Amino acid sequence: MTAEPFTHRFEVALHDIDAAGVMFFGHLFRHAHDAYEAYMARIGFPLDAIVRERRWLLPLVHAEADYLSAIRHGERIRVMVSIAEVSRSSFTVAYRFLDTAQQLRASARTVHVQLAQDGSGSLPLSEPLRAALVAGSP
Amino acid sequence: MTAEPFTHRFEVALHDIDAAGVMFFGHLFRHAHDAYEAYMARIGFPLDAIVRERRWLLPLVHAEADYLSAIRHGERIRVMVSIAEVSRSSFTVAYRFLDTAQQLRASARTVHVQLAQDGSGSLPLSEPLRAALVAGSP
Amino acid sequence: MTAEPFTHRFEVALHDIDAAGVMFFGHLFRHAHDAYEAYMARIGFPLDAIVRERRWLLPLVHAEADYLSAIRHGERIRVMVSIAEVSRSSFTVAYRFLDTAQQLRASARTVHVQLAQDGSGSLPLSEPLRAALVAGSP
Amino acid sequence: MTAEPFTHRFEVALHDIDAAGVMFFGHLFRHAHDAYEAYMARIGFPLDAIVRERRWLLPLVHAEADYLSAIRHGERIRVMVSIAEVSRSSFTVAYRFLDTAQQLRASARTVHVQLAQDGSGSLPLSEPLRAALVAGSP
Repeated sequence: MTAEPFTHRFEVALHDIDAAGVMFFGHLFRHAHDAYEAYMARIGFPLDAIVRERRWLLPLVHAEADYLSAIRHGERIRVMVSIAEVSRSSFTVAYRFLDTAQQLRASARTVHVQLAQDGSGSLPLSEPLRAALVAGSP
Repeated sequence: MTAEPFTHRFEVALHDIDAAGVMFFGHLFRHAHDAYEAYMARIGFPLDAIVRERRWLLPLVHAEADYLSAIRHGERIRVMVSIAEVSRSSFTVAYRFLDTAQQLRASARTVHVQLAQDGSGSLPLSEPLRAALVAGSP
Repeated sequence: MTAEPFTHRFEVALHDIDAAGVMFFGHLFRHAHDAYEAYMARIGFPLDAIVRERRWLLPLVHAEADYLSAIRHGERIRVMVSIAEVSRSSFTVAYRFLDTAQQLRASARTVHVQLAQDGSGSLPLSEPLRAALVAGSP
Repeated sequence: MTAEPFTHRFEVALHDIDAAGVMFFGHLFRHAHDAYEAYMARIGFPLDAIVRERRWLLPLVHAEADYLSAIRHGERIRVMVSIAEVSRSSFTVAYRFLDTAQQLRASARTVHVQLAQDGSGSLPLSEPLRAALVAGSP
């Protein structure tokens, strides 16, 4: 994939931190998904419209993350979103979490498949979606 | 209301705590709602069925909480649920959060109204729901 | 209070919505607190520094919200933050949640007190904090 | 590892569900961590005491999950926790999410390392912790 990575920013909130004083690992996935939502809107596939119109479903079938160093309250984080892979009926989104010193603090991946409206099985990715994912633009 | 209060228990998790080292105030409402869900199932109105069947809607129109002392990681909390008020088209649920020493640590209230399926306006509470709320049992 | 209200914006995410198809009421408090964090940073009292330095504690002792109409996935919400009251040892923050059509969709309030570092009791608000809250600026 | 798997149960709450009508993928990690907390308490290493005493840190460095079929509001889920691997300075926890029909709905893994109190680097797992993880009991 050659498209320019998409950037989403957030600031680590009081409630992102857990009893150990660092960002709760599960919240990284919430921020990754916020970045994914922003990315999908940017390429012309806003999730709220997809969900509302129920044309097809894009469930997430796999998620993973690596945590390189603890993320703390008040940090300003930049999430670089890129499409790591597009296959017949699925695509993989990669996320890199960078701090203001450009250090990589965490990375994540999510894999999404396209299902028929009735959830009955995987479909080939719709052609406009595939094209937008590859181009990184509408 | 004279029905015996309903009890819901939870243990304060790592992710309930925020950067200040105490339970994030917003999470009290999550636990209150878990207690409310358990209570509604107990009196014969499980929320998952109500939501799925879309017979009517029961939106929450007001919520409030008072925090008496900081709740900490690992504490075992008992939520006492009672129905504080039942009026023509709304009801108020009261929650008391007690620790293992029977100290009151927080309290909360939520107010729910019954709307028509299309959200067009408030309805009188359905009679079986009113009766179950007053009796505290199905 | 005459200071210009402070504005914080957010977009309603997939995970903000609950099984009933509307924003979960508890998440309004998370967004209110994000707005409060941004406001406190703006007036020179960033919470991450206050928490880290443990000079004093600012626990939240009361929270309440009114929900006027259901907030949905993808909506762009503007939170207007203002200081509703400053008393000897506490202050009240008011939040108004507006949509892009300038309709008021929800409102909330949080009350915060200043405690000594050891949590032993309420203190008068520190004078610089009081002044910043009244002025709405550092 | 031959120890009997540890079981943690939860019921899928209204707020676990997202705009697409299924459990938000990130919340699976919250439930996994609740199961991990319960497991650690069972084998004699309650996280709240570990965090409070700051003897050592056990940060999570990797997390992953596979989602086999959508999990819905009101479902009763059983999480089977087992220790998949114990190495010199890390251990891997495996989670299997089963419904009441014993169908596997999702699985997850988390990898934890032991750090010195000052976060300066990984330590060999403390011997009592290693022994408890291998035995699945205190």
